[in-house]
Amino acid sequence: MNPNGSTSCAVIGASGYAGEELVRLLIAHPRADLAAVTSRQYIGKKVGEVFPRFDHVNEASELRFSDSDAAKISELADVVFLALPHGVSGSTAKSFLDHGARVIDLSADFRLRDRALYKEYYGAEHPAPELLSRGVYGLPEFYREKIAGADLVACPGCYPTSILLPLLPLLQARLISQDRITVASLSGVSGAGRKVEADYLFGECNESARPYGVPKHRHLSEIEQQLKELAGVTAPIQFVPHLVPMNRGIVSTIFVDVADGANEQAIEAAYQSAYGEAPFVRLLGSKRLPDTKNVVGTNFIDISWKMDPRTGRLVVMSAIDNLIKGTSGQALQCLNVMFGHPETMGLL
Amino acid sequence: MNPNGSTSCAVIGASGYAGEELVRLLIAHPRADLAAVTSRQYIGKKVGEVFPRFDHVNEASELRFSDSDAAKISELADVVFLALPHGVSGSTAKSFLDHGARVIDLSADFRLRDRALYKEYYGAEHPAPELLSRGVYGLPEFYREKIAGADLVACPGCYPTSILLPLLPLLQARLISQDRITVASLSGVSGAGRKVEADYLFGECNESARPYGVPKHRHLSEIEQQLKELAGVTAPIQFVPHLVPMNRGIVSTIFVDVADGANEQAIEAAYQSAYGEAPFVRLLGSKRLPDTKNVVGTNFIDISWKMDPRTGRLVVMSAIDNLIKGTSGQALQCLNVMFGHPETMGLL
Amino acid sequence: MNPNGSTSCAVIGASGYAGEELVRLLIAHPRADLAAVTSRQYIGKKVGEVFPRFDHVNEASELRFSDSDAAKISELADVVFLALPHGVSGSTAKSFLDHGARVIDLSADFRLRDRALYKEYYGAEHPAPELLSRGVYGLPEFYREKIAGADLVACPGCYPTSILLPLLPLLQARLISQDRITVASLSGVSGAGRKVEADYLFGECNESARPYGVPKHRHLSEIEQQLKELAGVTAPIQFVPHLVPMNRGIVSTIFVDVADGANEQAIEAAYQSAYGEAPFVRLLGSKRLPDTKNVVGTNFIDISWKMDPRTGRLVVMSAIDNLIKGTSGQALQCLNVMFGHPETMGLL
Amino acid sequence: MNPNGSTSCAVIGASGYAGEELVRLLIAHPRADLAAVTSRQYIGKKVGEVFPRFDHVNEASELRFSDSDAAKISELADVVFLALPHGVSGSTAKSFLDHGARVIDLSADFRLRDRALYKEYYGAEHPAPELLSRGVYGLPEFYREKIAGADLVACPGCYPTSILLPLLPLLQARLISQDRITVASLSGVSGAGRKVEADYLFGECNESARPYGVPKHRHLSEIEQQLKELAGVTAPIQFVPHLVPMNRGIVSTIFVDVADGANEQAIEAAYQSAYGEAPFVRLLGSKRLPDTKNVVGTNFIDISWKMDPRTGRLVVMSAIDNLIKGTSGQALQCLNVMFGHPETMGLL
Repeated sequence: MNPNGSTSCAVIGASGYAGEELVRLLIAHPRADLAAVTSRQYIGKKVGEVFPRFDHVNEASELRFSDSDAAKISELADVVFLALPHGVSGSTAKSFLDHGARVIDLSADFRLRDRALYKEYYGAEHPAPELLSRGVYGLPEFYREKIAGADLVACPGCYPTSILLPLLPLLQARLISQDRITVASLSGVSGAGRKVEADYLFGECNESARPYGVPKHRHLSEIEQQLKELAGVTAPIQFVPHLVPMNRGIVSTIFVDVADGANEQAIEAAYQSAYGEAPFVRLLGSKRLPDTKNVVGTNFIDISWKMDPRTGRLVVMSAIDNLIKGTSGQALQCLNVMFGHPETMGLL
Repeated sequence: MNPNGSTSCAVIGASGYAGEELVRLLIAHPRADLAAVTSRQYIGKKVGEVFPRFDHVNEASELRFSDSDAAKISELADVVFLALPHGVSGSTAKSFLDHGARVIDLSADFRLRDRALYKEYYGAEHPAPELLSRGVYGLPEFYREKIAGADLVACPGCYPTSILLPLLPLLQARLISQDRITVASLSGVSGAGRKVEADYLFGECNESARPYGVPKHRHLSEIEQQLKELAGVTAPIQFVPHLVPMNRGIVSTIFVDVADGANEQAIEAAYQSAYGEAPFVRLLGSKRLPDTKNVVGTNFIDISWKMDPRTGRLVVMSAIDNLIKGTSGQALQCLNVMFGHPETMGLL
Repeated sequence: MNPNGSTSCAVIGASGYAGEELVRLLIAHPRADLAAVTSRQYIGKKVGEVFPRFDHVNEASELRFSDSDAAKISELADVVFLALPHGVSGSTAKSFLDHGARVIDLSADFRLRDRALYKEYYGAEHPAPELLSRGVYGLPEFYREKIAGADLVACPGCYPTSILLPLLPLLQARLISQDRITVASLSGVSGAGRKVEADYLFGECNESARPYGVPKHRHLSEIEQQLKELAGVTAPIQFVPHLVPMNRGIVSTIFVDVADGANEQAIEAAYQSAYGEAPFVRLLGSKRLPDTKNVVGTNFIDISWKMDPRTGRLVVMSAIDNLIKGTSGQALQCLNVMFGHPETMGLL
Repeated sequence: MNPNGSTSCAVIGASGYAGEELVRLLIAHPRADLAAVTSRQYIGKKVGEVFPRFDHVNEASELRFSDSDAAKISELADVVFLALPHGVSGSTAKSFLDHGARVIDLSADFRLRDRALYKEYYGAEHPAPELLSRGVYGLPEFYREKIAGADLVACPGCYPTSILLPLLPLLQARLISQDRITVASLSGVSGAGRKVEADYLFGECNESARPYGVPKHRHLSEIEQQLKELAGVTAPIQFVPHLVPMNRGIVSTIFVDVADGANEQAIEAAYQSAYGEAPFVRLLGSKRLPDTKNVVGTNFIDISWKMDPRTGRLVVMSAIDNLIKGTSGQALQCLNVMFGHPETMGLL
């Protein structure tokens, strides 16, 4: 920690949209110092060159990309953010942890506890299985205390964030059935990262809406693991994500069966009890529906719900910015928790 | 009918997106003549003035908008398309029918058989209840023969088209359960019509995805009525539409429980049997997922499906152009059926 | 001024995009307090209700819209921002000034010095001609000192900001000719405000690019006035704005004849001399071209230039966020100058 | 030519947006048969597989991609369309011509007469300089007769089409000066082709407007050559294209100095005289400005103009669909002219 109480941060692999957004947030954070950024392709270039929108913002714009030397960077930085592809993050995390840095990983590598599950969903052996038990799931609304003391935080995926936060209070309070939980999500294209593939060209995404990843999207693994850990529920989720032509934002619409005796007051109460103090959860209730444009650029999740008297079922809807509450903002929220800064610092 | 075998057509209320699209299709149809177009606000103006994109296309661009005199127009036109708001269509249809024209109605006024249901969903008494039993639901894949002889065709809504065509063969073959049918749809903004309301401004729709009409969208009434009529099934559908930032296109993702003993071969067979000869239904099977960009500008519906071995449930997905197969193209398909033109004429 | 040195602010007419953006910036400004917001249509509603994206951000979200009582508001507020239509701003400004508030006007009412010119361009008599000489043009890069002491600041239009900042240093240094200055600008749709008109519906703007306001856009009046005041140049500008399908951003591409003896070094030197210390002007030189996506969400203007050896002419290009540097950010920059806050406070 | 009078066509390199659009138009053309399509990456696949939107349209959807064997294809096809990169087209054209096919080239390889100019603008030796004199510039409004007899047609670039058609009548009639012709164009992203490069990802193009290719875009070479050939004018054009977030469409805004004595009537007369019979040129005059949305999906060019009394200059504006009138539609228009079909066949 720096003398003035600020936290020294490094971002490893800062070339994709999540890394870029994280750099933006760190530059603006009053008690975070950007000590190092790395990306193989940009070594020697300034932050303000690689990301022209950050040029001239402050001295951080002048910082040059370096290579990812764990020893050197761990000396500079209290905390290292990994914005790397899954599989790569795992082994990188190890070397930083060995050098004494705390690690906040944006990839999927430490979200699962079970290496067999990892292999099933990610198609390869886990790169650092000995660390699996050490990772804390970076959902502050549920793991605030563990995050505070963690040296390895695994930030949740964007879809899981948008699905777990609406579901968990209802499952924990046994207000809904664990059976037939069905989710349709809509995501802006930045959710696919800055992948240079034909599928993500403007001409292929603009004026296009399409489902993908049916029926077994990778994020199901962490969603179901958390439902089990936090609500004691074992049940496969039915999940279909869709790509829609916008830069940012996720809407998740969740269809659930209501438990006997549950009603609107109980649902409202469960949400209030779970999130009454959570600074980034906005409970819209049944009066207003979420809209990505109200959360884009923020770390909020908006949640609303409607009982359907015709079917007796409940529809819960959420909206987040996939790059903020869905990735980098949540990572910063974890940083705040880990280093004793106010949880909302740099995020409101 | 004109001497050369072509059908003389009038479009009443041709100022919205559906009316405009219908005019476009009629202008290009080899055996349809545009005999009259009406819209209170455009009386005296040429088609090519009101819709600059049609200017100079052919002599139809020179046709002038007139008022909606049923007597005069019924003399000119074999068939009258009503592109009017619900409530208005009902009474207008009556006067054209009385003057001997056949009517293809794009509104909701003749889709339901039951005036109580109409009142429940549309909030007003039906304007012409004596005609309710005369309307034929204009879904040619299921009502081809009735449409051929009808003098009043009620074109299906855009969401119902995208939902009924995937669902009906499976329900008719008893391959899926009627319980807990759950649908999430995504629609381009033209689905809201050319309504001059703040909600549909560019700045409110671009970079925005949002659910709406939860939980009781009006289209549920005709969907459920048709499931009953055509598949003998009585069950409330769970349906959440979403608005996404594109001009045209609907994706519907449908979650269903599979009946005992149903399998992929049976599903494939049911679809082949239902649509093997249907010129506008493309069965993508389980290999390719639908994408609105492949159907926009066409009268096709693309349907694909995936069994989910994890949940034992089935996901069926469809894509249409909401203004073509979802409205005006389907209306033209009905015209072809009614007047003995090849079903695909003017639509491929 | 409040005890802690912060400035108490009111926003009058906070219902359009500029007003909303200003509220967003004020909420986040470390030394500005939002003391009052008004809008006839929202009286009694909370900021967080009217603008759901600001809900829960901080206590300012709880502030309720009031009516525009100049006496009351002038007691509460050190400075009053007017986000009103031209014509209305003029008379409103007077009553606030009379009650002792300082006024920052976002409309066009105090940008021109000459009431005849106002009438020519805005089609009506000026509502408060006696104040015309009192307004200071709120372009801090050129009027910083006057703004510091002003009680009535007229914020420049969005196009003028994007055109004057690139042009002025070159004209002042006599490096370009005053003849045949030609400008093509491209603007996102928020430039039209939140007008509920058919032209600005999603379906009319998406997938559309179009020139408008040819040949005599209102902003020409203030551009030409400033060229005269600041560079002593009298010459009509040729200007064509275009609307393109994005929410925010303006690109202006400016074609000029180079003066005898001018060269790239001199141009570079003139820009460096004018803007070397200006915190929101980024000089890209000849190596990188501006892109709205690099300035949207910021108060920066990016400026680049290229000599064309084939024509001997110079092309200068700029990009801004029309709602920030083009309107509300610049207004806040003026506030900082007027009240002695660091010029970049709340804007980086 | 086929017995029924239809023309047998091959498309070489049908994998980009221009090739795809050409295939779409040929499939729908009443007297064109799609005899062969080629693309290295798709050999053996059906048209309906490679381009899912064309699936099931008619028997042409079933045609399989083959390799580009000039001998075989020349036997099958009366005319060969080359949708290949510049440099590749040149040598390919030769082999088809040698086998007796007529060639319509969509690349830049035969647009210029001068190999030195080609090298200057395209950075390489011309691949088939002996053919340079044989290519006819495929702008039917000016070269209709030559095109009719040509065996090698070079389709104009998209920007040149949008600039030459508005400029030529005025220059030919000496109503405007050849000096300081200045053009700002706005193009949809399909203008860049289906290039899999980071610059054309959705996230880099959406919500972005940017100039590029400043100051010496390649299309200048053919524009200036045609101004010389058709209007006897030698003058460098000042041209800045911009990329804007839409799929299709080009707007060109052209600033010119008016010649002494020219007036609005003379301008109107020159356009009427040039294009009174041209089926795809719509003259909007001074009353309506062009909008890409009115031409997208059509082969029209919309042209309007405004005299500016303040500057004494003229602003001419045009809009086209870059993939239709700007590329593939114009190629089909040339086919109609070459093979004696009505010029508008398959294009209205």
